[in-house]
Amino acid sequence: MAEPARLERLERRVRELEEELARERRGRAAARARIDTMSAEVTDSNPYSRLMALKRMGIVKDYEKIRTFTVAVVGVGGVGSVTAEMLTRCGIGKLLLFDYDKVELANMNRLFFQPHQAGLSKVQAAEHTLRDINPDVQFEVHNYNITTLDNFEHFMDRISNGALEEGKPVDLVLSCVDNFEARMAINTACNELGQIWMESGVSENAVSGHIQLIIPGESACFACAPPLVVAANIDEKTLKREGVCAASLPTTMGVVAGMLVQNVLKYLLNFGTVSYYLGYNAMQDFFPTMSMKPNPQCSDHNCRKQQENYKKKEAARPKEEVIEKEEEIVHEDNDWGIELVSEISEDELKAASGPVPELPEGISVAYTIPDKEENLITGETVAESEESLEELMAKMRNM
Amino acid sequence: MAEPARLERLERRVRELEEELARERRGRAAARARIDTMSAEVTDSNPYSRLMALKRMGIVKDYEKIRTFTVAVVGVGGVGSVTAEMLTRCGIGKLLLFDYDKVELANMNRLFFQPHQAGLSKVQAAEHTLRDINPDVQFEVHNYNITTLDNFEHFMDRISNGALEEGKPVDLVLSCVDNFEARMAINTACNELGQIWMESGVSENAVSGHIQLIIPGESACFACAPPLVVAANIDEKTLKREGVCAASLPTTMGVVAGMLVQNVLKYLLNFGTVSYYLGYNAMQDFFPTMSMKPNPQCSDHNCRKQQENYKKKEAARPKEEVIEKEEEIVHEDNDWGIELVSEISEDELKAASGPVPELPEGISVAYTIPDKEENLITGETVAESEESLEELMAKMRNM
Repeated sequence: MAEPARLERLERRVRELEEELARERRGRAAARARIDTMSAEVTDSNPYSRLMALKRMGIVKDYEKIRTFTVAVVGVGGVGSVTAEMLTRCGIGKLLLFDYDKVELANMNRLFFQPHQAGLSKVQAAEHTLRDINPDVQFEVHNYNITTLDNFEHFMDRISNGALEEGKPVDLVLSCVDNFEARMAINTACNELGQIWMESGVSENAVSGHIQLIIPGESACFACAPPLVVAANIDEKTLKREGVCAASLPTTMGVVAGMLVQNVLKYLLNFGTVSYYLGYNAMQDFFPTMSMKPNPQCSDHNCRKQQENYKKKEAARPKEEVIEKEEEIVHEDNDWGIELVSEISEDELKAASGPVPELPEGISVAYTIPDKEENLITGETVAESEESLEELMAKMRNM
Repeated sequence: MAEPARLERLERRVRELEEELARERRGRAAARARIDTMSAEVTDSNPYSRLMALKRMGIVKDYEKIRTFTVAVVGVGGVGSVTAEMLTRCGIGKLLLFDYDKVELANMNRLFFQPHQAGLSKVQAAEHTLRDINPDVQFEVHNYNITTLDNFEHFMDRISNGALEEGKPVDLVLSCVDNFEARMAINTACNELGQIWMESGVSENAVSGHIQLIIPGESACFACAPPLVVAANIDEKTLKREGVCAASLPTTMGVVAGMLVQNVLKYLLNFGTVSYYLGYNAMQDFFPTMSMKPNPQCSDHNCRKQQENYKKKEAARPKEEVIEKEEEIVHEDNDWGIELVSEISEDELKAASGPVPELPEGISVAYTIPDKEENLITGETVAESEESLEELMAKMRNM
C-alpha cells in the first residue's frame, strides 16, 4: 500500500477508535452532574423528586437533612453493599466503607456486585459503582480488617473524626459483617466512644436474619446478652459444622438491608417508630420485634460506664419526659428488660436457664458466651485477643 | 514529522486504542462463561455455591430445579427490576419482562438502574444488565403496554406459550406494576388462563407495601375483593390528589421485592410456608399476613368459572387431602374466607359495611369498586374499556 493511503487509513482508524472508546467510557461514567441543592421539582431529570415527595406526603419533615449525615458501613458483602447502595440513592451526605475482601464470582448470588468486578477489592468496586449512581455522596473507603490492632485504632479514629466535617464523629455505624469477632470489635469501639450503631445479620442457612439498634448505656450491647437470632425451625447442629459453606440468598439479604436502611432513615430523619430489634423468619414470614435493657453485669466495662452515664442523664431530665422514655423501651417486671413491641403476649415468654435471657417466641440465641472467657471480649483486650477469639469462635461452632 | 516516524506513531496509537477499547469492553461484558450444570463445589469462582448450599443446609431438596422454571415480570420499575435481578442471580431458567417506560434520572432513588441508562427502555436496559450478571438465564423482553387490545392479546399468548419449552405456559406471572388498570389486565388474563400469579404493590407515600398470591378459583382474585393495602396510619386523602408525584424509597421497594421473590422461591422450590398475603407497614415494622377465599359473586366470569373447576377438582380428591387443604387456607365462619395466619385474634376482626371484606388490623382496602361499573373490569371488555377504566380510576382517586 502506498504510504499516503496507509497514513490516511491509519488516521481514520485512530479517529474511529477514539470515538468508540469515548462512547464506551461515556456509557460507564456518571451520566449526571452534581446537584447543589435537593429540589422537589417533578421532572424526569430530578433524581431526588420521589424522595422530596416524602415531605408533601407528610412522612418526613425535612428530607434535605439527609445530606448532613455520615454513616459508616462495616462489611460490604451481601447486606452491606445493598445497604450502601440504598443510602447512596437516598442521598446520604457521606459514607465510610470498611471491608478487606475481594469480589468473587461466588458472591454473584447476592445483589450489587457484577461478574466483571471479580478480583477487585469490595470497597473499591463499591465506591466506583456508587459514585456513578450518585456523585453527590462523599465516599471514604478502607480496605482492611478492623479487628487487627493497628486497623482497630484507625477504625476508632475514623468513626470518631470521619464525618462530613472532619473531626466530628459519624452519625451511625452499621455492622454488616459476617462473623462474631468483627461484631465484637465494633461493639467494643462503640461502647468506648458512646457511638450509636445498628447490627445486622443473616443465618448460615440463609432463611432468617435480624437488625438491632444499640444505644450504648440505653439498650443492650452485643456483650450484654448472647447475640440474638430468629429461630430457623431447623436443626441448628447442621449449621455449626466446621468448613461448611454458608448458604445465602439475595432475597433474605435484600430484606435485611431494606429493614436496616429503613431503620436508619427513621432514626436520622425522625419519622415512624425506630425498631430496637426486628427479626425476619423467611420460612414462616414472621417478623418478631422487641427491645432489651443493658445488662448491669455486662463484661464490657465501657458498656457499664455508658449505663452509669445514661442513668445520670435520665435522672437530670424533667420527670414526665423520663417516664415517657421508660415506658417506651423498658419492661419493668423482667430482669432482662425485654419488651414485646407486638405479636407475642407476656404469657408466651418462656423461661430459659443459664445466661440466656427470656425471649419471645421465634427468637433464640446464636450461642452463649462462656463465663470464664468473658475477659476476651472486653474493650481492653480486643486487639491482643485475636487468636483467642478465633479459638472461642471454633468452640462456639462446635456447641 | 517524517512519514515513517508518523506511520510508526499512528500504528502504535492504533494498537494502544485497540487495547484500551478491548479492556473497556471486557469490563462491561459478562466476565464469566455459561455454566452447563449447577455445581455445589465450594470455590470462589462458582456463582452457584451459596445457592446449592441450601441443599446441604436442609432448606431446599432440589435447588437445580430452579433452572427449569420460567417467570414473567410485568413492570420493571422499583419493585420489578429488583425482582428480576434477584431471580437472575438465583439462576432462574427464563425471564419474560414487560414494560413500556424509559429509564429516567427520577428513577435513581430506587435500586437497579444507573444514571448512564437514562433514556433507554427499561426492558432493554434491564436485559443488558441482567445478561451480564448471569448469562445462563434466558431473557425475552417486550417493550409495550399490556393494557391495549393488540398488546393484551400478545401478552396472553406469551404467558401461555413463552416457557423455556416454547408452547408451554410460564410457571408464574409477577405483577410489579404501579396502576390499577395494568393489575386488572393481568388479573383478567390469569383468570382466563387459570394462571397462578403474585401481585405486589407499594403505597404512594412509600412507607407500606404488600405481596399477594392468587391461584385462580382457589384464592381471591383482584376483582373478588377491593385491592388490599397495609394501612399507612396517615390521612389517606392526601394521597389521592390528581397529579401529585408519588414518593418512593429504595428500602420499601427492596423489602417488597425481597418478600415477593422469597415467596416465589418457596412456591417453586417447595420449602417453607408460601404466604397468600404479606403486608409491610414500614412506620411500625408491622407485617400482617392473611388469606382470602374467592368471592362467589366475583364480577369476572372467568374467576367464577375457575371457582367451579376448583370445587370439582377438590371434590374428586381423596377425602383427607381435601380437609387438609381446606384447613390450610379457608376460614369457615367468615363470609369472605379471611384466615388470620398470625398476629391478630378472631375477636379483633371488625365488621365493615358494603362490599368491603372484614380485614385484620393494619390492612385496609385501597378503594372500593362501584357495583354499577363492574362490567368494565370483566374479561370480555378489558380491551374496549380503556377509556372507561381511566374514568373509573379518576373516580377512585377522588373517593
